[in-house]
Amino acid sequence: MAFQPTYSMRMRVGSNLVVTLFGESHGPAVGALIDGYPSGHRIDAEQLLIDMDSRKPGTSRLASMRKESDKVEILSGVYEGNSTGLPILLLIRNEDVKSKDYSFLPNLPRPGHVDHPIDIKTDGYADLRGGGSFSARLTAGLVAAGSLSRSILPKDWKIEAKVGALGGLEGVEAEALASQVKKAGDSLGSRVDLTISGLPVGFGEPWFDGIEPVLARALMAIPAARAVEFGRGVESGVMRGSEHNDAWQDGMSLKPGADGALGGMATGAALKVRITFKPPSGISMPQTTFNKAKNSMDELQIKGRHDPVIAPRARPVVEAVTRLVIADLAIKGGYIDG
Amino acid sequence: MAFQPTYSMRMRVGSNLVVTLFGESHGPAVGALIDGYPSGHRIDAEQLLIDMDSRKPGTSRLASMRKESDKVEILSGVYEGNSTGLPILLLIRNEDVKSKDYSFLPNLPRPGHVDHPIDIKTDGYADLRGGGSFSARLTAGLVAAGSLSRSILPKDWKIEAKVGALGGLEGVEAEALASQVKKAGDSLGSRVDLTISGLPVGFGEPWFDGIEPVLARALMAIPAARAVEFGRGVESGVMRGSEHNDAWQDGMSLKPGADGALGGMATGAALKVRITFKPPSGISMPQTTFNKAKNSMDELQIKGRHDPVIAPRARPVVEAVTRLVIADLAIKGGYIDG
Amino acid sequence: MAFQPTYSMRMRVGSNLVVTLFGESHGPAVGALIDGYPSGHRIDAEQLLIDMDSRKPGTSRLASMRKESDKVEILSGVYEGNSTGLPILLLIRNEDVKSKDYSFLPNLPRPGHVDHPIDIKTDGYADLRGGGSFSARLTAGLVAAGSLSRSILPKDWKIEAKVGALGGLEGVEAEALASQVKKAGDSLGSRVDLTISGLPVGFGEPWFDGIEPVLARALMAIPAARAVEFGRGVESGVMRGSEHNDAWQDGMSLKPGADGALGGMATGAALKVRITFKPPSGISMPQTTFNKAKNSMDELQIKGRHDPVIAPRARPVVEAVTRLVIADLAIKGGYIDG
Amino acid sequence: MAFQPTYSMRMRVGSNLVVTLFGESHGPAVGALIDGYPSGHRIDAEQLLIDMDSRKPGTSRLASMRKESDKVEILSGVYEGNSTGLPILLLIRNEDVKSKDYSFLPNLPRPGHVDHPIDIKTDGYADLRGGGSFSARLTAGLVAAGSLSRSILPKDWKIEAKVGALGGLEGVEAEALASQVKKAGDSLGSRVDLTISGLPVGFGEPWFDGIEPVLARALMAIPAARAVEFGRGVESGVMRGSEHNDAWQDGMSLKPGADGALGGMATGAALKVRITFKPPSGISMPQTTFNKAKNSMDELQIKGRHDPVIAPRARPVVEAVTRLVIADLAIKGGYIDG
Repeated sequence: MAFQPTYSMRMRVGSNLVVTLFGESHGPAVGALIDGYPSGHRIDAEQLLIDMDSRKPGTSRLASMRKESDKVEILSGVYEGNSTGLPILLLIRNEDVKSKDYSFLPNLPRPGHVDHPIDIKTDGYADLRGGGSFSARLTAGLVAAGSLSRSILPKDWKIEAKVGALGGLEGVEAEALASQVKKAGDSLGSRVDLTISGLPVGFGEPWFDGIEPVLARALMAIPAARAVEFGRGVESGVMRGSEHNDAWQDGMSLKPGADGALGGMATGAALKVRITFKPPSGISMPQTTFNKAKNSMDELQIKGRHDPVIAPRARPVVEAVTRLVIADLAIKGGYIDG
Repeated sequence: MAFQPTYSMRMRVGSNLVVTLFGESHGPAVGALIDGYPSGHRIDAEQLLIDMDSRKPGTSRLASMRKESDKVEILSGVYEGNSTGLPILLLIRNEDVKSKDYSFLPNLPRPGHVDHPIDIKTDGYADLRGGGSFSARLTAGLVAAGSLSRSILPKDWKIEAKVGALGGLEGVEAEALASQVKKAGDSLGSRVDLTISGLPVGFGEPWFDGIEPVLARALMAIPAARAVEFGRGVESGVMRGSEHNDAWQDGMSLKPGADGALGGMATGAALKVRITFKPPSGISMPQTTFNKAKNSMDELQIKGRHDPVIAPRARPVVEAVTRLVIADLAIKGGYIDG
Repeated sequence: MAFQPTYSMRMRVGSNLVVTLFGESHGPAVGALIDGYPSGHRIDAEQLLIDMDSRKPGTSRLASMRKESDKVEILSGVYEGNSTGLPILLLIRNEDVKSKDYSFLPNLPRPGHVDHPIDIKTDGYADLRGGGSFSARLTAGLVAAGSLSRSILPKDWKIEAKVGALGGLEGVEAEALASQVKKAGDSLGSRVDLTISGLPVGFGEPWFDGIEPVLARALMAIPAARAVEFGRGVESGVMRGSEHNDAWQDGMSLKPGADGALGGMATGAALKVRITFKPPSGISMPQTTFNKAKNSMDELQIKGRHDPVIAPRARPVVEAVTRLVIADLAIKGGYIDG
Repeated sequence: MAFQPTYSMRMRVGSNLVVTLFGESHGPAVGALIDGYPSGHRIDAEQLLIDMDSRKPGTSRLASMRKESDKVEILSGVYEGNSTGLPILLLIRNEDVKSKDYSFLPNLPRPGHVDHPIDIKTDGYADLRGGGSFSARLTAGLVAAGSLSRSILPKDWKIEAKVGALGGLEGVEAEALASQVKKAGDSLGSRVDLTISGLPVGFGEPWFDGIEPVLARALMAIPAARAVEFGRGVESGVMRGSEHNDAWQDGMSLKPGADGALGGMATGAALKVRITFKPPSGISMPQTTFNKAKNSMDELQIKGRHDPVIAPRARPVVEAVTRLVIADLAIKGGYIDG
């Protein structure tokens, strides 16, 4: 069979609340366009600042040094501080871009990065600098969109993510390990733990648009995500039914630790989700990889600025993505009135 | 805020190759409608029989006793043995239905089942018998659709799933454990291991329609799936970048074990995926749960016919779902010519 | 540029209430799958019979002689007479099929028919008999789906279509003309007039999902539709603004004849739509056209059974399609509660 | 039934090449986000200027006096002058905005305008100034997107629109009539004639995604469009089949004037489409309408700047919309290779 790529790609998520990301790490801007945001909701500019700050690099020893002001311009869909019901454009200009750092591309594609696949896919037309549209920089648009989705969700629906583990450790030990790994020019795997509570029983959908499937898709789209687990996750693979089954209690409640979603729909219990992130591929220690220009193995030393571990910066992104997914299901299912 | 459910639900997957499931476990039929299947492909009736047989219950000591002929009627979109390019309706009549087994519903909802959430969601209008549209019976339509998608995928793209573990064990030990658990009226968690190979470098899309996100969504929709892992999955959370990074080798190849997808796109290496299934909720040992009619805790003994472990029957479903997802990406991306 | 058709086609309409048609005129069955139909609605079997009868051929001198029982099997999504909220499969078996009538295809494609384009598009794989999936036979599924959508629409929303004109004439004159044309083995153009009333002010959406755009799309999909006009339609092209503008009256009402939709949204006035149908291409008088096998012009005499004019049979299809479109906008917009 | 609007709206068109419009007439900006644009196409900045100029007001006696620089910023998806295959954001800042002109809203909604319906729909939250998102100003984004779609369409596919008639007249007479109507403070209906040629036989799809349906939808979304006709359009309603049927000629060609699309697919003949526009609702002569604040009829004199007739400014919009629709069908159908 012939092989005939057309390279038509999408960067959209959602069914009724549709978010399209755009932008490149070293292009003029990144951002998100939200189509389907209901009218009459207060846009909380202060909360937007807080949320954008929470993912900003340069604020911790464990985050990269890139300075980004992350100022969000709201260019449509908001009038006198409220949503109009029409598309909301969120634009974030790029600043502090150092493109010289990426002059080794495309000839010396970085191990663990998407440089080579996207270069092949687009026949060399992709903007590879800084990871292009695959950069974590794109999560700025996601976090901005997620921040705006706060006000359409009922106040008693809670979506909270926290750093679960760094290299398998928690707390002070984790911090110490991450610092040590960073000093060595290396990076570390990590985990974010997400809890969703307050969803009404039956919230969600069957099959492919169930809470678990749509959430799994959205979370696995976060750069470097490698696993997503619901409820007891991988652990459930070694359990017995008698042990795993959650008996309905008085008033059809469930005991803490019970599955928060079954068959795509909320049970009334808190939904626990764990997302595992691989160690960042961008490490400063020297690596050996293939050089296409030289047609031989070569040494690569990545300069640039890199996060040694992903969970701390992915945490607000996990929350943002989850809010967008839950808001989409809520709007479509008629759970909120706009 | 007011709460106003509309209960409009979807059972569709795919963007250009769109599969809609339909049917209820104890209704007249189940099946799938495929919209977007290209024209000119031979429909392999023999392969369809083989694939349907592979998920059929009643063929193993570890599967439930329900007898299903699983005969697939192809009612449209195929002419003289080839696809016409127009929607293909796959209809599978239900047989050997024993609805009396489910007379305890809705008052005594089973632990770990979706009985209660869907009853609440639809205000009592759902058909709860046998799990309704949430039953594993619905996977018959998926397997049939997946079988037809074989012929549109290039022969050198391999999609293979195998039973990975039962209760954490493999091989003979696993079989022994499952038999023992079954005898005790209990059930067991399990894992299916999936390998996709042969995809051209760059196959896939960025972000939400990347291989990992769309596959995660489709796999998490399989009843009882609780976790999905790509590449080194949960293990990557405790690794270092220097250890996890896959250096490009001669000719831009990758060593075995390298990530098969990065940022949503194929790398050229085989893509490894692991799907964890919880122990089946339907166990025959007595359970205690809440009885809505009596307004008190009650004992529940489920009769019916149940699988003690899911992986053996989920294995062909994992393959089918994966084929559909890959075929959808391939059609949309222009990787196959129809 | 290379030319590389993939022939992946769709037969779907709707966004939240999604209807996929399937089937071929001379295949085993036709029908529709409805995804997104809300739960808890009574399925009115009697109304379904009435609606199916209204489009049935063989009931008038102006309709073709094909006998179709048009019995609709509801194979999923309905339990104890009510919708469950899950996909509803409507299946209509084909009967009285005379495929010998179409043995002249594909070599002698009929003028005004889609035989040749679909043959080229599918490289010969389409089922051309009786027009295949392009046959008016497929409207049976649409009418069945439209019938079921009645019960989700508020009772005071009225959707009524009537035969507007046959060959430019109305009433008895029109009937006489059509009979005369039929006797001559010829066919006649016609028009259906549609009125939608009772929609709340603001119902609809801006731009591409406005009432006019989505209705125009759905109505233009009815076989042989050639024009669709809203309000004063083509006539508005010769009017002055001072004459066409509809002043808001007491209580923001509008005078009769005012535009029922502006910018995609309902105004409160009745929305008038006119759909023009070309004369049916299937005429029994001899025609001259190109014979691919002989590579020369040839005489073609179509036997089969044909409608001499489309409006009488298209009328219930116009209503059905309109109901589906309005129901989709209503569900998505939250105008009905399911 | 309860009535519970959620006001979630869309401003998207397309399936694989997806264009979302955004912006308000008197907000900071308007524009379009294109998702699905293939990689490797030259962005022709000069052609973009020409296309933007062609819809610019203030260039003719028949157009409004608003000065717009219409400078298009391309903020993503383009690198070194070529498309990268990732979303392209086209941003056009608003200038020369005179919002004082609209202080009579919402109390005195203009006849023939969408002021009242959108005010009701959004419970007062819409930005009504200058027509908000319903303004012809939004077509700037459409024309920009349409301009970029030129380079993905084969050169021998021609899409050409011309002013068909103003108030039923053509040429010099039409111009004279429009000037006279403008002087009188009134406006005039008009028509745009569109011709699409060069499409390969079979291009398009069946039913709802056929050329006619998707084009009808997109064209009816252009502000003030009231009718769309294909081929012989409304005229076909008074024709006989023997007269309307287009015999296939030598080499399966068709005579000039034959239908360019049948059943959603191209026939090889040029496709003729006519779009009728109502007279612009914004006229400067005094009008009587209802004043919500006074609760009585009132006189309204609209100042602002208005086009006396739509066709001259709609012409490039018709072309742009058509290009986008054809490009979407082409990408999805595999007719172009990206």
